[in-house]
Amino acid sequence: MNIGFIGLGRMGSAIASRIVNGGHDVVVYNRTPGRAGDLLELGATEASNVAELCENRELVITMLADDAALRAVTFEAGGLLGSLGKGAIHMAMGTHGVETVVALDSAHREVGQTLVGAPVLGRPKAANEGTLGIITGGPLDAVTKCEPLFPLIGRRVFDAGVKPEGASAVKLANGLLLGCAIEVMGEAFSLVRKYGVDPETFHDVLTGGLFSAPAYKTYARIIVDEAYDDPGFTTELGLKDANLILAAASAANLPLPSANVWRDRLLGSIAHGGAQQDWAVVAREQARAGGLEP
Amino acid sequence: MNIGFIGLGRMGSAIASRIVNGGHDVVVYNRTPGRAGDLLELGATEASNVAELCENRELVITMLADDAALRAVTFEAGGLLGSLGKGAIHMAMGTHGVETVVALDSAHREVGQTLVGAPVLGRPKAANEGTLGIITGGPLDAVTKCEPLFPLIGRRVFDAGVKPEGASAVKLANGLLLGCAIEVMGEAFSLVRKYGVDPETFHDVLTGGLFSAPAYKTYARIIVDEAYDDPGFTTELGLKDANLILAAASAANLPLPSANVWRDRLLGSIAHGGAQQDWAVVAREQARAGGLEP
Amino acid sequence: MNIGFIGLGRMGSAIASRIVNGGHDVVVYNRTPGRAGDLLELGATEASNVAELCENRELVITMLADDAALRAVTFEAGGLLGSLGKGAIHMAMGTHGVETVVALDSAHREVGQTLVGAPVLGRPKAANEGTLGIITGGPLDAVTKCEPLFPLIGRRVFDAGVKPEGASAVKLANGLLLGCAIEVMGEAFSLVRKYGVDPETFHDVLTGGLFSAPAYKTYARIIVDEAYDDPGFTTELGLKDANLILAAASAANLPLPSANVWRDRLLGSIAHGGAQQDWAVVAREQARAGGLEP
Amino acid sequence: MNIGFIGLGRMGSAIASRIVNGGHDVVVYNRTPGRAGDLLELGATEASNVAELCENRELVITMLADDAALRAVTFEAGGLLGSLGKGAIHMAMGTHGVETVVALDSAHREVGQTLVGAPVLGRPKAANEGTLGIITGGPLDAVTKCEPLFPLIGRRVFDAGVKPEGASAVKLANGLLLGCAIEVMGEAFSLVRKYGVDPETFHDVLTGGLFSAPAYKTYARIIVDEAYDDPGFTTELGLKDANLILAAASAANLPLPSANVWRDRLLGSIAHGGAQQDWAVVAREQARAGGLEP
Repeated sequence: MNIGFIGLGRMGSAIASRIVNGGHDVVVYNRTPGRAGDLLELGATEASNVAELCENRELVITMLADDAALRAVTFEAGGLLGSLGKGAIHMAMGTHGVETVVALDSAHREVGQTLVGAPVLGRPKAANEGTLGIITGGPLDAVTKCEPLFPLIGRRVFDAGVKPEGASAVKLANGLLLGCAIEVMGEAFSLVRKYGVDPETFHDVLTGGLFSAPAYKTYARIIVDEAYDDPGFTTELGLKDANLILAAASAANLPLPSANVWRDRLLGSIAHGGAQQDWAVVAREQARAGGLEP
Repeated sequence: MNIGFIGLGRMGSAIASRIVNGGHDVVVYNRTPGRAGDLLELGATEASNVAELCENRELVITMLADDAALRAVTFEAGGLLGSLGKGAIHMAMGTHGVETVVALDSAHREVGQTLVGAPVLGRPKAANEGTLGIITGGPLDAVTKCEPLFPLIGRRVFDAGVKPEGASAVKLANGLLLGCAIEVMGEAFSLVRKYGVDPETFHDVLTGGLFSAPAYKTYARIIVDEAYDDPGFTTELGLKDANLILAAASAANLPLPSANVWRDRLLGSIAHGGAQQDWAVVAREQARAGGLEP
Repeated sequence: MNIGFIGLGRMGSAIASRIVNGGHDVVVYNRTPGRAGDLLELGATEASNVAELCENRELVITMLADDAALRAVTFEAGGLLGSLGKGAIHMAMGTHGVETVVALDSAHREVGQTLVGAPVLGRPKAANEGTLGIITGGPLDAVTKCEPLFPLIGRRVFDAGVKPEGASAVKLANGLLLGCAIEVMGEAFSLVRKYGVDPETFHDVLTGGLFSAPAYKTYARIIVDEAYDDPGFTTELGLKDANLILAAASAANLPLPSANVWRDRLLGSIAHGGAQQDWAVVAREQARAGGLEP
Repeated sequence: MNIGFIGLGRMGSAIASRIVNGGHDVVVYNRTPGRAGDLLELGATEASNVAELCENRELVITMLADDAALRAVTFEAGGLLGSLGKGAIHMAMGTHGVETVVALDSAHREVGQTLVGAPVLGRPKAANEGTLGIITGGPLDAVTKCEPLFPLIGRRVFDAGVKPEGASAVKLANGLLLGCAIEVMGEAFSLVRKYGVDPETFHDVLTGGLFSAPAYKTYARIIVDEAYDDPGFTTELGLKDANLILAAASAANLPLPSANVWRDRLLGSIAHGGAQQDWAVVAREQARAGGLEP
């Protein structure tokens, strides 16, 4: 396929590389220049702006950090909306809010283009190895056209139905599970600490039993060690996700009380200086609320 | 060892059987008569009341359903406190509130006896197979005396320190993790349903990724199938646990906001007729709160 | 009427005095001796125990600090249950939990006595002046028999129906409104402080507008002045009420999410040393959660 | 003064009329035409667009329904930013989010103009009568220039300091108090209903005691009568406010747990069809959560 790829951060570069290596004709673009080097060596070409990238592309993939970037790339003068041809597909692989996705979907549709939502599960390492999970949402024929790319990128595809915002919802719901699991671990660890129990003991209980899953093993370790200063994912980014989750729920008239609890702890963590710490620092904030000061 | 064993429900019978089979001299007692049959065949003897059971016992194990039963067996006339000899150990294996455990600990201490807390992790099947987790709390020498029994009962021992209520705290904290994980799953499933996603897809995302642990696999399945009518554990029992957890937190001046959210959903479930349904029915209650009526 | 009166704290003494002054034949009793002096001068007589107090009394009033005291006075050997005659009335004027009231109601009924719930609204000053609010719950004929006393005690009677626990529910619901109003004020003040607004300005906005009621005027002042060290009502007593409220809700399968939030702040306040401070110190705890340290 | 006035809804028309009657030179504009009739009769003139309205105006007042309208009027081509002269003042009297106000403040400042925040307290009736409360935020000299108008508009001015977003914070905090008071009333009424108490009794308790303020009198009545179908203020508008409040808190890293509870009930109310009902319908949603179905 002839593909355009916008957004060459760690995730984007890794995914684009695998697509180029898969034999596709790929033009890349990144707002901040100088990121395309490795991809050009692999055989990609570089466009100097979005409009140029769109020329003769049947599919443009975006992998952008937030909704503002996605809206800019799409709606601004010289953006995807005005530059892509009729019948072209925009596959958005970032984690985006449902309102943004709905707005893009509607705008693309009006000009005869199609939006596919395809957020991914996994960190850059999985992207490099092509073992991401891919959540797809969009019209069946458009998703089908993108299918040849999926084996290059991921280990598994999850079908979120015919609306691109469905894929966002699944990605956000997965983030909700993780964020709240960390918050609840924080509550549980503070409870055992109050009764004089070595946190290491509770770590063993949970990781050796019902909760022997990556989410719990990773974060129970960080909480026991209070290893918040070398973040895998920051509190600030966690708050961004929490806000997207609650906005999606609000737009659908859905109360999410556990999500509120979690967000409040994220806010408290940031208020106490933890914006750039690992988002598991909510466990420290929870302890603080009970007088177990750091 | 010469052991007394009080409480012959499904968990108690299974544990007592394994101790008898391990070659120990065991006298059993159950408030409701007629439960000791199988144990007597294995070689146990039966006492007709608690006082009789206590005669010449260095260790009495209780496995009782709630705090009221434990308090009755301990404090009533003819109970453990008055009938056990000086130096004897009471090992309480039920899931009990910290206030009850602290009250018993103090009372036993005053008359020269010792309380060991030893709640277990696992269902009756694990008790039959001797693969429970055992959480111990109590003075080192008393716990050491009980140690020969642990390999008969469980796969692993978790050391909660020198206070019996520490063991309760660990057991309750584990219940907190599980109850809140179910509540959060309920929130996440209701979010994806609001955006038209097949719950089966989200089931696959979570059980195949960061949450591939027994807690999530079991309950995601129940939630997707709305299989609440054949309960593994009822909402009513879940509420009993939630109340013990929140009482332990309150006694320690510790806010547990996620636990509050979970308990509110349990209450709402019961208000809507779900007392005897599987406690995962909180997911239905969560859906109802967002207008996704059953 | 020939009346027994148990519980001579500040509230009890004030109420008993007004009843004696109203011309009734009153025997008094207080567990801690030496509190009856003033009442004896007014014409009351003193009993040396509950059983003696009950002799020939058609009505016994209790005004006790907590459920434990009420249960002891009622259920213990020589208590009201065994000492009052058939047809006698026990009017409980303290603030008690619904479970305790239901237990007493049922026990009194079984022996042919009647429980009337009659908790009051107002502080000791109002009790002295006979301007309390009185909330009554109980069988119509029993409440009617007590009616001659009400004008001596209060300015107004509120009819909570034929069950004594209904009166408890009204009293607790009033406490819920007040406790949560303070918590919400704490949230609102912390919000304006975050935006650099003088708390005095917000004080004026709220007390001069929609919230020009005693509850808001009293507590907005305390919060602005951070005058927590001369408590009108302590955090510890607030927690006792919050626990009664949540127990009443739990027993009725009713979620009370705002009550949970309030109780969590009370717990946090106590964890930070505020047990004996004014219960409005939840506003400081709220500020702390947002990094506005005291 | 020569004044421009944008936004002629019920509040805006009432305020503008009083300013015209106060003898000022007023040009008005409303996006939807045909609203200026009465004002023209009083002596105002009408502009055909924002740019025209700005000509020779030292002060432009906006009274707009939401942030989108305010941003459009300010930032769009031909908007306030480009059309107002250097030194001119923009006084925004609507209820706006802090992020919008901060964005406008910074933009006006850059081109030598000044933003004053001046949201008001009160309904259209108070606007007609000139008895609004006015909350001011902005540089002292700019606020001082606006002062001659305040006696025409309101009964009282509240000084929120030198930043326009401070005025927003006060207005939002007042809304937080009110919204949460209604939610808590809903919880309290559902508690007494669970215990068989006539809601009218609880109405009398609260309005006759600590809560004898307009906020409680108005909404307790609506809740007792379940009079949600003739809204004074809709659930949908309540949700808009709740979202502004939580956004302001999030931007300041402040947890507001009671606000979360309230918003969840608003969302549930809308999910159950209450978007256009009175926002006190959260009391019904609260009752529903406890199985007290309407």
